[in-house]
Amino acid sequence: MTPRMISAGLHGLITEKVRDVPDFPEPGVLFRDITPLLADGTAFSAVVGHLADVFGGEVDVVAGIEARGFLLAAPLAAVLGVGVVAVRKVGKLPPPTLRTAYDLEYGSAEIEVSPAGLTPGARVVLIDDVLATGGTAAAACRLLEEAGTKVTGIGFLIELLELGGRDRLPDRPMHALVSY
Amino acid sequence: MTPRMISAGLHGLITEKVRDVPDFPEPGVLFRDITPLLADGTAFSAVVGHLADVFGGEVDVVAGIEARGFLLAAPLAAVLGVGVVAVRKVGKLPPPTLRTAYDLEYGSAEIEVSPAGLTPGARVVLIDDVLATGGTAAAACRLLEEAGTKVTGIGFLIELLELGGRDRLPDRPMHALVSY
Repeated sequence: MTPRMISAGLHGLITEKVRDVPDFPEPGVLFRDITPLLADGTAFSAVVGHLADVFGGEVDVVAGIEARGFLLAAPLAAVLGVGVVAVRKVGKLPPPTLRTAYDLEYGSAEIEVSPAGLTPGARVVLIDDVLATGGTAAAACRLLEEAGTKVTGIGFLIELLELGGRDRLPDRPMHALVSY
Repeated sequence: MTPRMISAGLHGLITEKVRDVPDFPEPGVLFRDITPLLADGTAFSAVVGHLADVFGGEVDVVAGIEARGFLLAAPLAAVLGVGVVAVRKVGKLPPPTLRTAYDLEYGSAEIEVSPAGLTPGARVVLIDDVLATGGTAAAACRLLEEAGTKVTGIGFLIELLELGGRDRLPDRPMHALVSY
């Protein structure tokens, strides 16, 4: 991973295109909607290009977290000329899978990956749209490492600073394009 | 859309990488697992490149059907330099959304899109991984047209011939890379 400052132009483009939606998915939550950003060809290309600059070079496969993470992981993989692996909610992938549980604020959740494509020793870059509490990303790292791969970088479009997700990814090379 | 024969080499690469999983997600169903195909950089690039050859040119935005469709729609959009729009299951997108219901074998389902990015008159290419009964794709076309856009092409990686999905997309320019 090559840490890179995001240009003022790209930062402005992203913050202009991310739409704030109060009280979604529940009262009191301010949702950062990336739909208008992804739908804009110029902004979408610039985001994918920036991720490619940061994570290109030493990567064998890109992993994306279901579902919005797929919208950034897959184009990044295509631009880098590598494959893409889906980190999915339980029950979506056919057997065999690797699975791990992680804690949520109330209760817990499970995610799965298929070992297909996760060659032992492969260098994986993990991508999601938003870093919130970091629980899913930390679980995904664990799962990818259980599969024998090495997580060489983690990328997010948006980091929500007040949720402290970065603290759950200690010592991991991590990059977010914008933070709120 | 420019219909194109798929090369024997790419056809062979796809069928070699798609894994048959019997009895998933339920007994009697033969699931075509594209995980190994997507995870292979060469095969993934070739598939996205072929879709770009077929659908490039006259397209303003690519729409992908949740969730596996995102893994092909987003890289296609990136290669074509246009934006990507997510056709999602109900409840995932923040308001405002457009929504439509469609019949399943037992019961019904609903999908949604955000009007953001769906400029009236925009030419949309719709992408999913597999054409099965065609119900979701037909509903997605309806929804995109309700938003005022024009669906200029529909692309699938795989068409399952015996389910007759093509019949639910009459008169629509449609392309699938391989069929079973």
